[in-house]
Amino acid sequence: MSTEPYASRAQIKRGRKRASYDIELAKKIIDCTLMCHIAQSVDNQAFITPTCHWRDGGFIYWHGHAKARNAAGSADQQVAINICQLDGLVLARSAFHHSVNYRSVTLFGVPELITEEQEKLRQLKLFVDRVSPERWSQLRPITAQELTMTSVMAMPINEFSIKQRAEPPKDDLADYSWPVWAGVLPLNKSWGQLEQDPQQADERDYSLPIAPEVC
Amino acid sequence: MSTEPYASRAQIKRGRKRASYDIELAKKIIDCTLMCHIAQSVDNQAFITPTCHWRDGGFIYWHGHAKARNAAGSADQQVAINICQLDGLVLARSAFHHSVNYRSVTLFGVPELITEEQEKLRQLKLFVDRVSPERWSQLRPITAQELTMTSVMAMPINEFSIKQRAEPPKDDLADYSWPVWAGVLPLNKSWGQLEQDPQQADERDYSLPIAPEVC
Repeated sequence: MSTEPYASRAQIKRGRKRASYDIELAKKIIDCTLMCHIAQSVDNQAFITPTCHWRDGGFIYWHGHAKARNAAGSADQQVAINICQLDGLVLARSAFHHSVNYRSVTLFGVPELITEEQEKLRQLKLFVDRVSPERWSQLRPITAQELTMTSVMAMPINEFSIKQRAEPPKDDLADYSWPVWAGVLPLNKSWGQLEQDPQQADERDYSLPIAPEVC
Repeated sequence: MSTEPYASRAQIKRGRKRASYDIELAKKIIDCTLMCHIAQSVDNQAFITPTCHWRDGGFIYWHGHAKARNAAGSADQQVAINICQLDGLVLARSAFHHSVNYRSVTLFGVPELITEEQEKLRQLKLFVDRVSPERWSQLRPITAQELTMTSVMAMPINEFSIKQRAEPPKDDLADYSWPVWAGVLPLNKSWGQLEQDPQQADERDYSLPIAPEVC
């Protein structure tokens, strides 16, 4: 595992002016996005898995079935992870300058399996409370068997790069007078109305769950 | 490139009841999602790139800089692609049964570089009109140089699997009386207000662009 923050695998080759290696910005994008994609190479064959992640300090975490390829099966193996938010469509005056506004973090590294039980518990609590703040303490407590069936992976946020775009179209100078609407169509994400489990018909006055931040 | 639709790489191993191999459903998820993630293996090193895709018939397409790893650099090499929509958070009575509602398609295959100029043009028009219907014909026409600088990749939608969940929490029977709110918090996506390019101050009455379908 490389300990150099800007090692070559993560270095942006194209569109360098959209690149950043700012750890605080990376953490911010990681924190406000619920899902990541994990790529693995097994016998030079690429695999890809979408999953939910969370962050604690300088590490990104995810969980999975103890036998899953992207969970325990990824321990001590190199992975590449991308976390991306599509923020809008950039409609330019030429097809060539059409683009998207987005925030994207790509991480490289070797995940570690969390085996220490108390740390695993602590991380799963962080995960549940990231999905819905203060929820963990209200739940039926986790059992030893459930804990065994769940793998928790940790990977340092170390070798990474950010690429982002958040601006109007950049057209060729000669095209600015071309008579077509140009600008950005923003994509919004928001939480809808809570849908209570139809099996929860006892009508007790449960306190409603807290929605996590999306951005 | 495998021609078997349900070849082993794409076969779902865990959560089989959430799996599907229905090509029409796959096309529907591909069509209503704007972004995919492409995983590649280069010398047994995994790489991952988010990009926008489109579909024409039985093929998925993407474009990129002619020198990009995930564009021309992926020609004749095996890739894995995932297209995933997060639809909601599933809040169960135990941490273990927390989940997400989602629609996910994973494709395996070997992309081909489109070299025939007329076909490349036709595909780029499909792409622009997928991003905003009827837009291509209003744009400053594409130049020969722009066409050369852009690679278009095609991959058959052949070896794929779908995994999806769209339901309330499934708790352990004994937990249904546990006193915590349970249900789904849906994640909505919608287009925001158009943001016209500040450089488009001539106040001509341009017809507004058409927003694409999101779901």
